[in-house]
Amino acid sequence: MAIAGHSNGYTTAALAFTLAVVSVSATVSLYRWRRRGEDLECRIEELEKSLGSTREKSASERRGRVKAQQALREALSQSESNDLHNTIYPMRPIGTIQSCFSTRNGTPRQPLLVSLARACLKFDQALVPPASLEGLEEYSHCWIIYVFHLNTDIEKLWRKPSQSKLKAKVRVPRLNGERKGVFATRSPHRPCPIGLTVAKVEEVQKDRILLSGVDLVDGTPVLDIKPYLPYSDSIQGASVPNWVKEECLLAVASVTFSDTFSSSITSCWKLIEKKSLYSSADEFKSLITQVLSWDIRSMSQRNKPQDTSDADSSIVYHLVLEGLDVSYMIDNESNILVQDVSLPNNLEEDVAAT
Amino acid sequence: MAIAGHSNGYTTAALAFTLAVVSVSATVSLYRWRRRGEDLECRIEELEKSLGSTREKSASERRGRVKAQQALREALSQSESNDLHNTIYPMRPIGTIQSCFSTRNGTPRQPLLVSLARACLKFDQALVPPASLEGLEEYSHCWIIYVFHLNTDIEKLWRKPSQSKLKAKVRVPRLNGERKGVFATRSPHRPCPIGLTVAKVEEVQKDRILLSGVDLVDGTPVLDIKPYLPYSDSIQGASVPNWVKEECLLAVASVTFSDTFSSSITSCWKLIEKKSLYSSADEFKSLITQVLSWDIRSMSQRNKPQDTSDADSSIVYHLVLEGLDVSYMIDNESNILVQDVSLPNNLEEDVAAT
Repeated sequence: MAIAGHSNGYTTAALAFTLAVVSVSATVSLYRWRRRGEDLECRIEELEKSLGSTREKSASERRGRVKAQQALREALSQSESNDLHNTIYPMRPIGTIQSCFSTRNGTPRQPLLVSLARACLKFDQALVPPASLEGLEEYSHCWIIYVFHLNTDIEKLWRKPSQSKLKAKVRVPRLNGERKGVFATRSPHRPCPIGLTVAKVEEVQKDRILLSGVDLVDGTPVLDIKPYLPYSDSIQGASVPNWVKEECLLAVASVTFSDTFSSSITSCWKLIEKKSLYSSADEFKSLITQVLSWDIRSMSQRNKPQDTSDADSSIVYHLVLEGLDVSYMIDNESNILVQDVSLPNNLEEDVAAT
Repeated sequence: MAIAGHSNGYTTAALAFTLAVVSVSATVSLYRWRRRGEDLECRIEELEKSLGSTREKSASERRGRVKAQQALREALSQSESNDLHNTIYPMRPIGTIQSCFSTRNGTPRQPLLVSLARACLKFDQALVPPASLEGLEEYSHCWIIYVFHLNTDIEKLWRKPSQSKLKAKVRVPRLNGERKGVFATRSPHRPCPIGLTVAKVEEVQKDRILLSGVDLVDGTPVLDIKPYLPYSDSIQGASVPNWVKEECLLAVASVTFSDTFSSSITSCWKLIEKKSLYSSADEFKSLITQVLSWDIRSMSQRNKPQDTSDADSSIVYHLVLEGLDVSYMIDNESNILVQDVSLPNNLEEDVAAT
């Protein structure tokens, strides 16, 4: 029995030992596994974070790509639409006009009216080699095809032709504002703002030609020049409506110069002498006389005096020639007094009350 | 002693039990933790996979965006360069010419030479409302400013002006090929391929005008029309070099029609009658006479007979009027025999040996 008791004790102790070993080992690996789990959770957190940010990045890249591609499609479709219908021709000027007429105001309404009106057409060397002018000097006159670059609506006309509302009829100065279809006039405001004028060929140089009798404003872009051919350009018996007959031009009675002018011109001339198209102050003075011998005022300007008939003598008009501001007055009998000449403070083309 | 043995057995049992409980619970939570670890590993695998693909996606989006933006920059820089220097003006035709001259060959070298030469200028309704033509009918003649659209080099001129090598001098037919500067001529091959011609205004309708005396080929795009103003357009005493005097035009001795022609014209006329600018086969025949009364052959064509003087009578020239192919011969005394008229198989403008 005592033995039995002994053997029993042994068994229990062995079992207990085994269990102890098992539970210890279990606890150890349990601990290991718990640690591993924690590591894995950290890794997952990292992964989830970087996945989120990468997704965001990808989305913004996508937005950028889509945006750029849309803009590209637009840009291309525009140029394409021009090519496809082939209804738009890009015209590159062959040169630019340097004219005695610094502003539109005072620029004659027709060519050869002011024989002293001079201009120099400077060519774009890349487009016009000197050889291409050979023979032009044999002609007395040439046509000048140019762009009405001062049209205020011109930018819009190029950018959004559909939106630029062009008037079908224009007021005709000679008809005191009565309106005619634009194609029955030489108005600058036409669907294709191309001007046509003729000038006297004074001298042909290698990169420029000197012209006279021009009605072009300074800075005019020129698209083409062609020799004047009397046998096809001068049409015998061509008829026009009465309202455009030459006599309709408004000639003034007289042009005289004030003493103020005479003293001013000497000093002013020194400032422009070098770059001027004229050789002397007197020659420049003759230009002024020629330009003012036709009433160059706009209709609104002409009509003003009638509104305030007593104050009309106080109205001073301005004209910019060779960069100089020429001020003058005109009385009811259309006698012109050239008052003064000066460097323009602002090239105002409109009436300035004194 | 038995009691002692008993109490010892109890203690061991209790200990064993406790240990058993511990080890079991440990094993259970160990199992739980192992499962958890496996789940986490799966999740990590997933995350790593989707992270990789998202990174790839993002990269390709980026490539797409960059590519599109580069293309956009290019497209914009091109149009910008035009705007900035503002040296290129896009010109949109106001209409298109329907002319009796189907091809360049036979089209007169100057206006008003062939009084029966008719054309109809059909306007782009969007640009030319009927009101804009009001008053044009009061003029006998008008200028037509157009594009030399048949110039073979024109496409290149628009696309790559820098690369299109334009000849500075051109051969002058009247000088049997002597060369003059392009600006001393009316040659179509000019830096700005704009043509200038004048025509008689026959009738002004709401969307078109009928013209005569034209020297324009069918399909010519028109940029502008202007009334002809004799007081400024017709210059008295304008001088030209001898080589462009009107007499230099090469008139032919006579124009006669073969019997073949007379029989052909009747059947041909039926085909074009409806859309023709002419009212009868006889009127069309008079047009042919007028057109052929000047030697319209190109220099190379004129010179050929001299090369093979015995065979010259066998050379048949072609001319396409109102879409009909008119064939004719010319002898050394420049007497013309109109041989036949037919629907052109191919609108060849050059000599065709029989």
